[in-house]
Amino acid sequence: MKISELSRRTGVPVASIKYFRRQGLLPAGRATAATLAEYGEEHAQRLRLIKALTTLGGLSIAATREVLGAVDQAHSSEGALGAVSYALPVPVAGQSPAAPGEETGAEAAAGAEVAELLAELDWRTPDTSPHVQGLTSALKELRRLDAQYAPGELAAYAKLAEAVARLDLERAAGLDDPVALAERAVIVFAICAPVFELLRRLAQENQVRRRVADGGAAAAAPQ
Amino acid sequence: MKISELSRRTGVPVASIKYFRRQGLLPAGRATAATLAEYGEEHAQRLRLIKALTTLGGLSIAATREVLGAVDQAHSSEGALGAVSYALPVPVAGQSPAAPGEETGAEAAAGAEVAELLAELDWRTPDTSPHVQGLTSALKELRRLDAQYAPGELAAYAKLAEAVARLDLERAAGLDDPVALAERAVIVFAICAPVFELLRRLAQENQVRRRVADGGAAAAAPQ
Repeated sequence: MKISELSRRTGVPVASIKYFRRQGLLPAGRATAATLAEYGEEHAQRLRLIKALTTLGGLSIAATREVLGAVDQAHSSEGALGAVSYALPVPVAGQSPAAPGEETGAEAAAGAEVAELLAELDWRTPDTSPHVQGLTSALKELRRLDAQYAPGELAAYAKLAEAVARLDLERAAGLDDPVALAERAVIVFAICAPVFELLRRLAQENQVRRRVADGGAAAAAPQ
Repeated sequence: MKISELSRRTGVPVASIKYFRRQGLLPAGRATAATLAEYGEEHAQRLRLIKALTTLGGLSIAATREVLGAVDQAHSSEGALGAVSYALPVPVAGQSPAAPGEETGAEAAAGAEVAELLAELDWRTPDTSPHVQGLTSALKELRRLDAQYAPGELAAYAKLAEAVARLDLERAAGLDDPVALAERAVIVFAICAPVFELLRRLAQENQVRRRVADGGAAAAAPQ
């Protein structure tokens, strides 16, 4: 297809396609004349991934290039999903400043809590995962706010997260191509994570309203 | 207690306490001399809520004032939790621009999908909830990206969100005071939502690694 058709198919303006070409994000088309090139399905697919990473994922051109490189080298669904998961961070609300001594102690305590939880769950997650570090930071902040979970509570949340992750992976089940998988992963991280949080908020509203309406009895009873 | 003690207890600098006083966020202490005032436990509690809303919640002074007003008028746990839930938005990734005609159709379709889901779940959530609107926007975006859920999938996520919300409300169970409840709610929305998302990412990593290691058999088997 010509560049105009590629633009129409993907919803990416021609000028942006040319920009992504110059930045090395998109491979060259097959030259058919001095100023004309022919593009294929693989260009359309990659362009959709670039669009998802830069708009939904909010990544810079440099970060997008890194993710694309990792996806290209992945040759497996594991690698492609991991590259996207690591590139799109989970924002944790503002860390309050603390004295250096407090910092080290709280960090170590939170790190031990995370390691214990992962061992208890028997989750195979590499220590180098940025999400292990993110979880450690969040738990440290909860301790500092004097609002930490009891250990059992965190495990209860983790069991539910496991069930959600299973649904997530089912949604990616039909996709074998790393580029298509990576695009689906961006959508899951950017849109489906807020969808779940919105459902959680609505479920909270529902439960609070039922509790008020039924004088506290209904909320405790099985639904 | 004196303002210096109030500052020490809450970790809020004296200058900030004075600023919150001038902005009308914090009630006056009991005057003990022309330039001295005595503060009580209720001041410390409210100051912790102001701190949570402005730092963790990222709210402006004006938005914080509105939430505090709603919490004061609430006189119930329902109202206090609702005020905080509505004030702290759930960010949904960038909406792509669309033609006006497409917009109306997609909005209506997504709105119908949300209404149907809530009816099916029998959730008592007011139509005026910003989270109903947020969910509608997110589903519209999923449709536009050609990555919408099958209806049953969304219900499956909603059931898990219901279980997560039940854990959330258990964590607030011991708190009857609206101000203390509101503070806990800010922490749940700002820190516990990322914690769940981080657990979800780690669970995904675990499941992908198991699937690769066990050749696809383990992921399908019950854990």
